[in-house]
Amino acid sequence: MLLVRCCLGLTRLGPVQAQRHRVAPALASCAVRLCSTREEQRWSRRASWKHALAGLLAGTGAVLVYGLHQHKAEQAEPIAVQTIGKPPAFPVYTQDEVTSHRTLEDGVWVTYKGGVYDITEFVAMHPGGDKILLAAGGALEPFWALYAVHNSEHVLEILSEYKVGELSAEDLKKQQQQSSQSSDPYASDPERHPALRVNSLKPFNAEPPPELLADSYITPSAIFFKRNHLPVPQVDAASYRLQVDGLPGGTLTLSLDELKSRFPKHTVTATLQCAGNRRSEMNRVKPVKGLNWNATAISNATWSGARLRDVLLAAGYSPDAARWARHIQFEGLDRDASGTTYGASIPLSKAVAEDGDVLLAYEMNGEPLPADHGFPLRAVVPGTVGARNVKWLGRVVVSGQESSSHWQQNDYKGFSPATDWDTVDFRSAPAIQELPVQSAVTWPPEGAAVGDDGQVTARGYAWSGGGREVVRVDVSLDGGRTWQLARLRGGEEEVGEGREAAPPPGRAWAWKLWEVTAPLPADAGDELEIVCKAVDSSYNTQPDTVAPIWNLRGVLSNAWHRVRVKVQRDEEEEEDQDRDGQEQ
Amino acid sequence: MLLVRCCLGLTRLGPVQAQRHRVAPALASCAVRLCSTREEQRWSRRASWKHALAGLLAGTGAVLVYGLHQHKAEQAEPIAVQTIGKPPAFPVYTQDEVTSHRTLEDGVWVTYKGGVYDITEFVAMHPGGDKILLAAGGALEPFWALYAVHNSEHVLEILSEYKVGELSAEDLKKQQQQSSQSSDPYASDPERHPALRVNSLKPFNAEPPPELLADSYITPSAIFFKRNHLPVPQVDAASYRLQVDGLPGGTLTLSLDELKSRFPKHTVTATLQCAGNRRSEMNRVKPVKGLNWNATAISNATWSGARLRDVLLAAGYSPDAARWARHIQFEGLDRDASGTTYGASIPLSKAVAEDGDVLLAYEMNGEPLPADHGFPLRAVVPGTVGARNVKWLGRVVVSGQESSSHWQQNDYKGFSPATDWDTVDFRSAPAIQELPVQSAVTWPPEGAAVGDDGQVTARGYAWSGGGREVVRVDVSLDGGRTWQLARLRGGEEEVGEGREAAPPPGRAWAWKLWEVTAPLPADAGDELEIVCKAVDSSYNTQPDTVAPIWNLRGVLSNAWHRVRVKVQRDEEEEEDQDRDGQEQ
Repeated sequence: MLLVRCCLGLTRLGPVQAQRHRVAPALASCAVRLCSTREEQRWSRRASWKHALAGLLAGTGAVLVYGLHQHKAEQAEPIAVQTIGKPPAFPVYTQDEVTSHRTLEDGVWVTYKGGVYDITEFVAMHPGGDKILLAAGGALEPFWALYAVHNSEHVLEILSEYKVGELSAEDLKKQQQQSSQSSDPYASDPERHPALRVNSLKPFNAEPPPELLADSYITPSAIFFKRNHLPVPQVDAASYRLQVDGLPGGTLTLSLDELKSRFPKHTVTATLQCAGNRRSEMNRVKPVKGLNWNATAISNATWSGARLRDVLLAAGYSPDAARWARHIQFEGLDRDASGTTYGASIPLSKAVAEDGDVLLAYEMNGEPLPADHGFPLRAVVPGTVGARNVKWLGRVVVSGQESSSHWQQNDYKGFSPATDWDTVDFRSAPAIQELPVQSAVTWPPEGAAVGDDGQVTARGYAWSGGGREVVRVDVSLDGGRTWQLARLRGGEEEVGEGREAAPPPGRAWAWKLWEVTAPLPADAGDELEIVCKAVDSSYNTQPDTVAPIWNLRGVLSNAWHRVRVKVQRDEEEEEDQDRDGQEQ
Repeated sequence: MLLVRCCLGLTRLGPVQAQRHRVAPALASCAVRLCSTREEQRWSRRASWKHALAGLLAGTGAVLVYGLHQHKAEQAEPIAVQTIGKPPAFPVYTQDEVTSHRTLEDGVWVTYKGGVYDITEFVAMHPGGDKILLAAGGALEPFWALYAVHNSEHVLEILSEYKVGELSAEDLKKQQQQSSQSSDPYASDPERHPALRVNSLKPFNAEPPPELLADSYITPSAIFFKRNHLPVPQVDAASYRLQVDGLPGGTLTLSLDELKSRFPKHTVTATLQCAGNRRSEMNRVKPVKGLNWNATAISNATWSGARLRDVLLAAGYSPDAARWARHIQFEGLDRDASGTTYGASIPLSKAVAEDGDVLLAYEMNGEPLPADHGFPLRAVVPGTVGARNVKWLGRVVVSGQESSSHWQQNDYKGFSPATDWDTVDFRSAPAIQELPVQSAVTWPPEGAAVGDDGQVTARGYAWSGGGREVVRVDVSLDGGRTWQLARLRGGEEEVGEGREAAPPPGRAWAWKLWEVTAPLPADAGDELEIVCKAVDSSYNTQPDTVAPIWNLRGVLSNAWHRVRVKVQRDEEEEEDQDRDGQEQ
């Protein structure tokens, strides 16, 4: 039990601390039982850190991994002696002394609420990678303000192990004065609809209630799911410029008015889905890292704007470029404390295809883009994971390389259920682009009472990536034993009998809503398990269960959706049943 | 038991026969207990026929449905009295009398081995549809020679119910003389490799043994799976002409030499898979109609030829045509007794896309196409179900409509597990084009002994439709409880570390071979269940189980592939295990 607690519990990082301070022999010895060499101890510690902080940071996407550096800063470590039951006496440092430690060579020191911390050893283990160096020699507060997820007791406990001193009272006072002048970077985020179910406030991440989502084929912008990685930037439409780079002719710069007047306005109805939609179901199998989305991190809207293809052609793109170019990189105007912007890329072939329908959109549902959805301009990449539909778009780059951003390289990828945070190699998997076929029950909610009129009605959505049309939704009222066909509803222009109304092959960007009304199964007990699965035009379908598609980031959660409900029979029907039972 | 036997067994078609001959009251009454009105009896009979013959014909694809006609021929029916235990006395008819019954109005009579049959009532129920009218007034033999599947006891039993007379001895003799002059349409089919596992001889359908298939990334043509719907046509290369129709400029006619000289030669390595691959697994859940393919109705070859896009451009195709054209129809030179050719179509967008890589191929694996694979020219539609890769290609038609062929309209479509032959509406599902992600274990074979060296090695293939690259194969040695990553092997040009060697997005037309070598699981009993599942670049994956994707035609069978093997430990290892056990 002691072994488990010291190696897996809150004190699992104790061994190295214990060794440093040459105390806490019980903890040290128990660690040594697992980690017999210094190299192994480092590995163990690294893995634990990676695991712990990745969990906290992954939700915001604010994680950058940059390779493991060996540091040479151990000699810079002040030797403070900590004895059990008595707080250690820490030396006092001036801000200048702290500031002199801002490299791996000189040691990396930071301050937090008057404490001085030597985090040199931690830099290589930080799941957020080299961004941590931006705080080197200074205060952590402004950075943690950006990623509110750091403000947890657990992170503070981790930090406390690295404490080496106290900041001088004078310098602490200066710091506090500066801090009070800088405002919360999220302070200017827009107001949101109260119906949204918030998963994270800073950055803002929220999904609509399921019972509202499937009410309308077009999701009202106010309840369209929100997935921000950073504070919402304040962009002035008049001075806004889009930069298009990477082509031999040089940079093309376009104002919002130019985007609207120089290029035909193109309108596409497209469903966007977060890669982490339905992550909560994976979390129930085994904990994963990320925002605990339920089944509504998906919405459908009508987007209008210039076609990216047209803009690229205006910037000098020609098929010649396809000889060296492979990707279109998008850079957002949302940025972190270091000035790094959100970024992602899509394959060039998708961007330039006439039937790719990639937009530089300035309207959503017939109105200018709302602040939360990328005002004044965003990429809309139909059929492609939400993360590549970059909002507050500042720059488009034609390149031979994928975006080097964290979100393209070290996040939003799928792994096997056997891959964990200690073994994951992000280079081994492709960045998610098209999403797999998906569907979910949005009505009735889990635990609801159904069947009081002898009928069960279920509703939901179904969608697939890559423009593959949903051609069928199978619904089961008995946990997947027997199935029935759901009625499908597309957009108004798609309603009609037969296949003629179908969108062109490969361009079915929008979801379908589905509905089933069926008699309560004759053999139903007190509970029903309502299950749905969709089939798309490539006849791909959803896997039966979650565990075999579980992955450490909890993305791509598209197993059959299951909702358990209670059976409520009215008295008359029960009497009928009794009579039937007697007659047989 | 009587009820079951007369309604579901071989005599289930008895009721109407019984009624016609006004005998067999036991059968008639038992039928009446189920089918109380004449309309219901007809329906019951129709459904049974549909079910029975569809099963026999579906494998050859020789089924045409053409709507149900009400016939008025009952008055033409001769009244013959059949009494139990005594064969009925049938009137004798001349060939001229038979020939006078060749329409639904006059009645539809046919002869078979000297018997005369009034099949008027059956025409509307024939799953093969109006083709049956081609035999009206004449002998069935030449038609049944084409579709060898008719030569079964079951079909003869069905036919016997419609017997109305005997053909005159003189006319029978004439018929036999004519018959001996006409040869077996399959007589000129090529010789085949003895390793092939034959599912049907006429037409020829066979798959390679699994242990050979995954031996080589490129499947040798001789053991490439064969899937013929009709006799192999004998085509003279010198006089061969391809016709390209449907464009405003009129017909373009091309000789084989012109196809080779006028258009750049383009080479593509592409995997073809039959829609029915792994049908046998569905058959084990519940019987389906079709050839009982195991897991190797899939192969990979290098194809060379002119690009269809180039040929269409030469024929006058321009983007203007995309305003009215939607499909490219292919017609084969293989034809049935009525002269109807094999046919299929693909979406225009696939045919004309620069990255669609659709070929009019004249070479397979560097040699002229073998006879079984379409000599001298075939369509190769990478990423698309085998059935659209039309062999012995005679005609290409640009059209606003899909191919009207049986194989496009009433076959090669996917349905829900709830849909049966009585409820199926072929118009309700799209023709299969892209196939879903697929993988299978080709080694070890089911029931093999593994693990004698403490290791298990498993091998197989993985592929996905639509050019979606297989990015991962997960393999389980414990029935899907735990998973490990398989090593993937692509073509020689694709071998290498990292993602750079990957084919361009959306153009991964060829399969990957995979292999896993792993220690025998510590908790293995006497048996292992080896399971594989693949993930493609859209992160679609295979469903866990077969039953929920079961469909009446047994197509699209892509659940996890499972192979049960026996565990064989060598004695030394068992001793080691015993010792380990004692030490713990």
